[in-house]
Amino acid sequence: MSDEIDTDTGTVYLVGSGPGDPSLLTVKATELIETADIVLHDKLPGPAIIESIPESKREDVGKRAGGERTSQEYTNHRLVELAEAGKTVVRLKGGDPFVFGRGGEEIEHLAASDIPFEIVPGITSAIGGPGVAGIPVTHREYASSVSFVTGHEDPTKDESAIDWGALAATGGTIVVLMGVGKLPAYAAELQDAGMDPETPIALVEQATRPSMQVAVGTLETAVNVRDEVGIEPPAITIIGEVATTREHVSHWLEQTPQHYFEQINTDEDS
Amino acid sequence: MSDEIDTDTGTVYLVGSGPGDPSLLTVKATELIETADIVLHDKLPGPAIIESIPESKREDVGKRAGGERTSQEYTNHRLVELAEAGKTVVRLKGGDPFVFGRGGEEIEHLAASDIPFEIVPGITSAIGGPGVAGIPVTHREYASSVSFVTGHEDPTKDESAIDWGALAATGGTIVVLMGVGKLPAYAAELQDAGMDPETPIALVEQATRPSMQVAVGTLETAVNVRDEVGIEPPAITIIGEVATTREHVSHWLEQTPQHYFEQINTDEDS
Ligand SMILES: C[S@@+](CC[C@H](N)C(=O)[O-])C[C@H]1O[C@@H](n2cnc3c(N)ncnc32)[C@H](O)[C@@H]1O
Ligand SMILES: C[S@@+](CC[C@H](N)C(=O)[O-])C[C@H]1O[C@@H](n2cnc3c(N)ncnc32)[C@H](O)[C@@H]1O
Repeated sequence: MSDEIDTDTGTVYLVGSGPGDPSLLTVKATELIETADIVLHDKLPGPAIIESIPESKREDVGKRAGGERTSQEYTNHRLVELAEAGKTVVRLKGGDPFVFGRGGEEIEHLAASDIPFEIVPGITSAIGGPGVAGIPVTHREYASSVSFVTGHEDPTKDESAIDWGALAATGGTIVVLMGVGKLPAYAAELQDAGMDPETPIALVEQATRPSMQVAVGTLETAVNVRDEVGIEPPAITIIGEVATTREHVSHWLEQTPQHYFEQINTDEDS
Repeated sequence: MSDEIDTDTGTVYLVGSGPGDPSLLTVKATELIETADIVLHDKLPGPAIIESIPESKREDVGKRAGGERTSQEYTNHRLVELAEAGKTVVRLKGGDPFVFGRGGEEIEHLAASDIPFEIVPGITSAIGGPGVAGIPVTHREYASSVSFVTGHEDPTKDESAIDWGALAATGGTIVVLMGVGKLPAYAAELQDAGMDPETPIALVEQATRPSMQVAVGTLETAVNVRDEVGIEPPAITIIGEVATTREHVSHWLEQTPQHYFEQINTDEDS
């Protein structure tokens, strides 16, 4: 890498799309998508946002070719290639680019390749997802901290880097991303670590999208509740006292055309 | 509280403003501010956003009258009063309404008063602040979790609810809000809990605003670095390996008119 940035090189904008409702894009994201030469995206921003981008300038780097997902190496390479060709590139990522989004790796690669870039934060599903369901991730009375954690760790790692006992010991809210499949494992680990089985939990699937679903229960009933409601990825798991707020407020939570909240009674299917 | 919502009652929109750059408002926030009858705000959204709201419809509920800050009780009362008078009310809060923003208390009060409301998430300074400075709060290689914590706890609480030892034990990134003044205390507590004094840290003040400042150091040098750069509230403290990403990338981080990054060499003043 050199100290000089070639002025003919295009800029890469690493842009967060938010959880999926197009009106939750930032003003800046909207403008950049409009003016960019090309928008590289995967599936996570969701159909409403992806389909609003002119087809001629969108490129799906998340699609599977022959069952194989496009590799991070390919995405890194493609970003550099386009910028070197002088293109203004938007790399659009679901939620915020820096919350379990591999944005860190992408900017390190851009920097090492002498490509100028800018970060445009987006609303993370880890806060906005619970939020639109009436669940505050922190609360003055019962959560002085909140931890975001991945339920689906890098399978190439030798041992689990997640210390569920330490997370439980913080006493704060725990929010799990990519945590639908591994729910039985971490719900058990948290109880083994001494967390009360009665601790409230909620699952929010497809937050801010027309197909949004919410399930509520306790650490003990979490897996049943997930299965009864039929929660599937992408979903957020919220663990902690804050999850009860929804019960107190959901009757007054407005259901606007853009947010079709399915108020699910988990007893109905059982 | 009753089961019926009076159709003459106005709706309250609890809206996050993001960290301060007006272009980081969501499309929805912008539209709601435009169409609302009244916007209740405090100082945290920052001058650029506040001054863009027509003066005739903004009301500062954060201002001090005779040295006293307007109480949360007054804000709660005012929201209900305006909605009952049929007004469409935007309650604009810095960052995201549910990240140390007392949004939970506000919606509980609205629900208890039979006022319909909607949540419009915003970009939290706790993710967007580090982000625009080139610091990802998670990173596949060295942070499988991130915890957000308040440095300034409710002084009415008997004992500290923050278990810094447990936070250190998670092994993830720690992000402290409202943590400028108490930095000496928690930097010491984390080291007492066994965290390496060489752990990288960064402080980001006034993120996304023209006066943005960044300081970098280690847990051991954190207080010196804060004082040399002159970091003042509002600022975010980032503790963990991710804080080093900025060093690797800052040369390629674009400085746009809206983001005047002051690249500060903390050695200069010493
Ligand atoms: C690879 S992570 C990326 C997270 C993203 N960067 C963010 O900030 O939201 C993917 C995970 O995000 C969560 N997620 C993303 N969009 C979501 C949505 N609309 N509703 C619920 N969860 C969502 C799910 O936990 C999903 O497994
Ligand atoms: C009462 S908390 C509210 C946080 C807000 N709800 C959010 O999501 O960003 C106030 C704290 O937010 C942080 N903060 C808010 N705006 C900031 C900005 N533009 N730059 C740095 N820190 C900011 C500071 O730590 C400040 O002390």
